[in-house]
Amino acid sequence: MILDRINKPNDIKSINPDEYALLAQEIREFLIRKISENGGHLGSNLGAVELTMALHLSLNLPEDKIVFDVGHQSYTHKILTGRKDAFDELRKFKGLSGFPKRSESDCDSFDTGHSSTSVSAGLGMVKARDLRQMSHTVVSVIGDGALTGGMVYEALNNAARLTSNFIIILNDNNMSISENVGGISRYLQSIRTFEGYQDFKVTLQKQLLKIPMGDRIVDSLKRYKNSIKQLFVPGMFFEDLGITYLGPIDGHDVNNMVKTINEAKKINHAVLIHVCTKKGRGYAPAERHPARFHGTEPFDIETGLPLKNKEKPAWTDIFSTVMLKATGRNDRVCAITAAMPDGVGLKRFMHLYPDRFFDVGIAEEHAVTFAAGLAAGGMIPVVAIYSSFLQRAYDQILHDVCIQNLHVVFCIDSAGIVGADGETHQGIFDLSYLSSIPNMHIMAPKNKWELSDMMKFAIAFDGPIAIRYPRGTACDGFKEFRQRIELAKSEKLYDGEDVALFALGSMVETAEKVRELLSKKNISCSLINARFVKPIDEERLLSESRRVRVLVTLEENVLSGGFGEKVLDLFNKKTHAISSGDLKIINVSIPDKYVEHGNPDILKKEIGIDANSVAERIERLLSENS
Amino acid sequence: MILDRINKPNDIKSINPDEYALLAQEIREFLIRKISENGGHLGSNLGAVELTMALHLSLNLPEDKIVFDVGHQSYTHKILTGRKDAFDELRKFKGLSGFPKRSESDCDSFDTGHSSTSVSAGLGMVKARDLRQMSHTVVSVIGDGALTGGMVYEALNNAARLTSNFIIILNDNNMSISENVGGISRYLQSIRTFEGYQDFKVTLQKQLLKIPMGDRIVDSLKRYKNSIKQLFVPGMFFEDLGITYLGPIDGHDVNNMVKTINEAKKINHAVLIHVCTKKGRGYAPAERHPARFHGTEPFDIETGLPLKNKEKPAWTDIFSTVMLKATGRNDRVCAITAAMPDGVGLKRFMHLYPDRFFDVGIAEEHAVTFAAGLAAGGMIPVVAIYSSFLQRAYDQILHDVCIQNLHVVFCIDSAGIVGADGETHQGIFDLSYLSSIPNMHIMAPKNKWELSDMMKFAIAFDGPIAIRYPRGTACDGFKEFRQRIELAKSEKLYDGEDVALFALGSMVETAEKVRELLSKKNISCSLINARFVKPIDEERLLSESRRVRVLVTLEENVLSGGFGEKVLDLFNKKTHAISSGDLKIINVSIPDKYVEHGNPDILKKEIGIDANSVAERIERLLSENS
Repeated sequence: MILDRINKPNDIKSINPDEYALLAQEIREFLIRKISENGGHLGSNLGAVELTMALHLSLNLPEDKIVFDVGHQSYTHKILTGRKDAFDELRKFKGLSGFPKRSESDCDSFDTGHSSTSVSAGLGMVKARDLRQMSHTVVSVIGDGALTGGMVYEALNNAARLTSNFIIILNDNNMSISENVGGISRYLQSIRTFEGYQDFKVTLQKQLLKIPMGDRIVDSLKRYKNSIKQLFVPGMFFEDLGITYLGPIDGHDVNNMVKTINEAKKINHAVLIHVCTKKGRGYAPAERHPARFHGTEPFDIETGLPLKNKEKPAWTDIFSTVMLKATGRNDRVCAITAAMPDGVGLKRFMHLYPDRFFDVGIAEEHAVTFAAGLAAGGMIPVVAIYSSFLQRAYDQILHDVCIQNLHVVFCIDSAGIVGADGETHQGIFDLSYLSSIPNMHIMAPKNKWELSDMMKFAIAFDGPIAIRYPRGTACDGFKEFRQRIELAKSEKLYDGEDVALFALGSMVETAEKVRELLSKKNISCSLINARFVKPIDEERLLSESRRVRVLVTLEENVLSGGFGEKVLDLFNKKTHAISSGDLKIINVSIPDKYVEHGNPDILKKEIGIDANSVAERIERLLSENS
Repeated sequence: MILDRINKPNDIKSINPDEYALLAQEIREFLIRKISENGGHLGSNLGAVELTMALHLSLNLPEDKIVFDVGHQSYTHKILTGRKDAFDELRKFKGLSGFPKRSESDCDSFDTGHSSTSVSAGLGMVKARDLRQMSHTVVSVIGDGALTGGMVYEALNNAARLTSNFIIILNDNNMSISENVGGISRYLQSIRTFEGYQDFKVTLQKQLLKIPMGDRIVDSLKRYKNSIKQLFVPGMFFEDLGITYLGPIDGHDVNNMVKTINEAKKINHAVLIHVCTKKGRGYAPAERHPARFHGTEPFDIETGLPLKNKEKPAWTDIFSTVMLKATGRNDRVCAITAAMPDGVGLKRFMHLYPDRFFDVGIAEEHAVTFAAGLAAGGMIPVVAIYSSFLQRAYDQILHDVCIQNLHVVFCIDSAGIVGADGETHQGIFDLSYLSSIPNMHIMAPKNKWELSDMMKFAIAFDGPIAIRYPRGTACDGFKEFRQRIELAKSEKLYDGEDVALFALGSMVETAEKVRELLSKKNISCSLINARFVKPIDEERLLSESRRVRVLVTLEENVLSGGFGEKVLDLFNKKTHAISSGDLKIINVSIPDKYVEHGNPDILKKEIGIDANSVAERIERLLSENS
């Protein structure tokens, strides 16, 4: 195995160029094997094997800096920097992260996870290098999907002014997570296939041949094209922005990429190398189904099929089904996704109602203001975005939707602990950032039927309204409880005498376990499904508080600005100082720190929001006071 | 007066074209007079007079929709839609807003205030129109400054796919608030002046003339340029994105603009009309000092000088001075502004330390991630952005700065009630959105010396840290109190027995008034300058709480996620249920609704955070309990 000779940064430089192809193949086999066992991002990593090899051949790590946009394509980089053996623990708790991490290796120069940040970060590192009079190379590696994100243009606009070297590698696989969308994608496609370029040349030629002496003109232009390169060079879009364009080149030809990167290093301003790759390259199922193998669960290598068959529908599936039903009845409903029709469950909607379906690309800011425009125009837009990605659109929700009190429905998937993707993807802030916004309404369902009911409620509502639900299997318990959804009304599931559990969304299931654990100790809990975070059910909170000794709020969100603080605020206002009698309040929430990657159950235990931890906490408090 | 004949929408259509120039002049005189009396946005409005006239001549309002990006250039639109007389109350409480407001007129189709939203909103309205089978025209009017904001590209990328009409008017005055920056600005400049285009043609011609038969080629190309228009048409940048480009045209020639808009209406996809205007046109001082007359206080028309001379330095001035001093000592400090070197007080820094100064354009997202890159590269970036604009970068702060715990200093100007600019500009959410983020530290100074001390503390700190301070005159009271800044430590100003006032930043001044008001009623208050919102001074809060009957938190921020809730949380955790004895807590904060425009003193009274309201509230509570 050539791979055995790669054990630390720069080891690749001692590999014979004849062996590059074989090394690439070994890396691919390694990636497929490890990801098939642990899950992870497959397609993007298979596509970037040779590109990453070329980077490591032309750069000196850790002195030189590579910023991987999004970062899920950094697996080969991890292999080439001595982390091969850690892949057995890929994305597991305390194991190798699926994203670059400065804390993991000094060869990881910048942590990423969300899209379209790499040019901004890279430019900052270039400026720091220049100001500190250093001379290393900085390279940002960005996919064409990330080019639909606006902040890249903010960064390119600034990079245009550089008078020192900055290399941007556009890893163009003509894909976002799903198919890429929009004008820029079409433009790249035209370069990539050379069709646009060829078309243009052919058209020009045809036109010229019609005019007197045209044949000679064509000959002359052909011979002199270097001196009038604007006429014949692709990538003028980037050149117009002020960025030197090189390419397109084959992203699976290591030697040519090394040569081009070395050329690019000599340029004293920002230079973009357009590299064409194939997502999923070398593994047929991933080449055929790029969206499915973007991020995958463990799978069978032979068939490409998931190892565990999904027994129960996910929250996303429920959303997907309700969207079809709800819209069948209401042609004012539109659906918006930011590059994840699969991920958020809008694929069926897309096929059935193409006119009312909008995939805007990785562009959460635009998604939300576009939705505001749709709502102002009389439609009912449903914006389906993961919790952590919707952070991008905080200002757009606050400024474009909520000031005008527009009827936009936010369906927020992957809210709460998401697990293996780690810090950047945990959806643990949405209750806070949404709560701070006037006019916003926020709900969370306890089970799959309630998600359906809440979606119908939200579509019939008038004003900004959000529903947040977790990643993974939808809860199908509590089927017997299905009270009608009413604004700011909670739902009581069980009565109890000692403790009132006010649980939000996914935490209803946890709270039910807490109730069972405590009942074994003769502590009787009422269980209330909170439903609404904004506005909260003041009446029920106050009435329950009069009956019990301990009131507990449970949420998968940080404390600051979340459900628990709202409850504190209520009791402070209404009973002044929560001091009426001897009611105690416990706020179960996510501590004020980032939650790393790992199995959600392990993580929940680690941060103390699992049923056992909560039950113990309640028991302790009760015993302290008895 | 021709203007007398303009009293409702579409009245302009009965004006004789011969009179357009005179009408434009009358509008300019009206604008200069009204803004000189009330303050407001002058330069952008003077630049857009003819453009707005042309829009109203070619469109039917309110059926057709105009979305004004940012919206501060909508004054002529307000005049032309029957709101002329309301200008006496411009930007005053309950008076005419300085921005478009759907609640003010059905001719205002979308509320704006922040930059770069208009193409997204317009596109949403276009899609709503098409889905509802309507046929009105939608026009988004966007300045070249706003083109530095990334979300425009997200929107253009999507607009490229349209198969129906959508008109985008690029109002290019070659200015942001200050000078515009970056590659896109340079590109527009090259079109605007035709220099780039001319250069290209000349170069081509020269090259061709050198080759055999070149003279004939030149002749032929000239004759056939329509058929090979790509070679000779400016705006290919937009065409590459998939947007039809028309222009550039003179933005002060009404008839030509009307003609072009009517042409554009016939195009069945997105079309951008590039209109060149002069900011401040028709008023010499505004033409000469566009940044100063972007948004202005009342001024003397003759001289252009402000009516009120500033007697005391503003918070911004203090920041400005300290930046010069702090950086004189530390060459790792950099300063970043998003298109507002004047507004945030970085002009002197810019001139003195041009290498370490970065104006990134209206691009808050990039600003923050760029700062993260600088910090990762070993610099100490100071990001100076207004509170309401920093909302744009919530995810970048959370994802790019704070996960990596990078030492980025945020100097947040215009935090709290800002006044005349209204809902979109009030800086009343920053404590909430910043507090939700792990690793973040947040301070607010009571007076100008403390701002200086906090800036030095922040620069010497290691990790993400923010200082928020208001718009307007810096407090120069409390000079005698200048304890050293220590992490999570408050500063006690006065001792008292009955009430403890924990006031944050600007509210220290208010709290002192409260203390005086209550002392007249024999209620004794201690006054504590809170200093830190995150982390809060737990020790002092607990010790004070043991001494008094009422503890009051005061902040210019919404309650949810702010300072007050943190204090509730502390007491709930430490004393369980805030129930130790009979301590009562009052959280003085901004209610959960948007705060409109008007004089800050009136607004504070209106929302109950002025000294009288707070004193009464405390007194009432004490009397209830006695």
